[in-house]
Amino acid sequence: MRRDGRPVPRLHVTSPLGEGVAVALTDNQSHYLARVLRLKQGDGVRLFNGRDGEWLAAVESGAVHCREHLRFQTETMGPWLVFAPPKRDRLRFLVEKATELGVSRLMPVTTARTEPPAARADKMLGWAVEAAEQCCRLDVPICDEQCDLEAVLEGWTGDRRLLFCDESGGGKAVTEALQGDIAVLVGPEGGFSATERDRLMAMVTVVPVSLGSNILRIETASVAALAAWQVSHDGSCSNSLN
Amino acid sequence: MRRDGRPVPRLHVTSPLGEGVAVALTDNQSHYLARVLRLKQGDGVRLFNGRDGEWLAAVESGAVHCREHLRFQTETMGPWLVFAPPKRDRLRFLVEKATELGVSRLMPVTTARTEPPAARADKMLGWAVEAAEQCCRLDVPICDEQCDLEAVLEGWTGDRRLLFCDESGGGKAVTEALQGDIAVLVGPEGGFSATERDRLMAMVTVVPVSLGSNILRIETASVAALAAWQVSHDGSCSNSLN
Repeated sequence: MRRDGRPVPRLHVTSPLGEGVAVALTDNQSHYLARVLRLKQGDGVRLFNGRDGEWLAAVESGAVHCREHLRFQTETMGPWLVFAPPKRDRLRFLVEKATELGVSRLMPVTTARTEPPAARADKMLGWAVEAAEQCCRLDVPICDEQCDLEAVLEGWTGDRRLLFCDESGGGKAVTEALQGDIAVLVGPEGGFSATERDRLMAMVTVVPVSLGSNILRIETASVAALAAWQVSHDGSCSNSLN
Repeated sequence: MRRDGRPVPRLHVTSPLGEGVAVALTDNQSHYLARVLRLKQGDGVRLFNGRDGEWLAAVESGAVHCREHLRFQTETMGPWLVFAPPKRDRLRFLVEKATELGVSRLMPVTTARTEPPAARADKMLGWAVEAAEQCCRLDVPICDEQCDLEAVLEGWTGDRRLLFCDESGGGKAVTEALQGDIAVLVGPEGGFSATERDRLMAMVTVVPVSLGSNILRIETASVAALAAWQVSHDGSCSNSLN
């Protein structure tokens, strides 16, 4: 807790973290701490890099210094999300909410009915970092560049089931398919083409699932499937510094 | 299906629907059909009013005429959502996604840590109508004006459990509490005050639930809880006209 009662800020960094380690911040991060949050020398900030857990660090001139190990790194078990990217704000929302709900990899794909432009991996990563900083995650999801659905399917290995969110009905309830390593596949607003559907249904790792009775938008279907996973997998998070 | 392969448009109306009934559209709706979608005389449009099911109607000059009963009205069983409203785009997103996920009533509340301005019921209803038109719902959620949390709690009756999304941990998994009539309660970003928490925990109808390990934003927590409800309640929807 900060002196004004607000939570200790939380930043994602790429460098190693450890006892006494000094961490250089980016210009944006330094600006944020000094000008937006008005932190002073000695104030605390929480750091995580996706490998070394979470550390409480102290602001000093030009850098922050790790002081205390707050949380151990946990293995990320969240689903992958393979999705036809929606446009503009809806893509940002999808990335942000998927990150909060524990997605471990974001894989935008081009399908027969996907409309350009493609989702940019660097943009997605920026939104994912912000969401991870805020939601208490210890890592940031991998953000792939958009590629063709067929290329993703060709490289698919049998150890991760692909839950195909099928709006045509007939799939099993998604809650019945959430065990083990999974990826969620959400198609474009116009749905998959007949060729794509045939291709998917011929794969042994594909499990058609239903998300209920309404026709959900891309980002809603994505969030609904990930929320179903999240609420079925309990976890714990130390909020003592909030 | 329209001649160009796109889905038959779907409009929410307030007037009665039935065999041969002529329905007057609002200026906005007429403009949308004629100028945006470029429908012509005789083209089809789907209508629903939350009471009489869904009808296929034909565009004629000045009105649309019901021709065919497509779906019977079903009873709405979705949860209520009692929530501290987030700001701007996040509120719109919440209303839109909650509608897609079957919420039956949206109840914005003022809590000790809710920031002004209040959520306007008419704005929320407009977004909910748009979402209902798109997602195949047969009704539109009730949108209440924002009021104090205490007023909502005072009027609460015992026949609907209030699932209190409790970020402090210790609640049961939300999936275990989704039976019967429920409402989901999501607090503001700063959490409920100690007084509010005590008040809630003293109510016999309140069930503390957990949504997993991360700290979710208001709209994410809302959508996650509603998605958990949606995927645990199967339904069916005739998509034959998509």
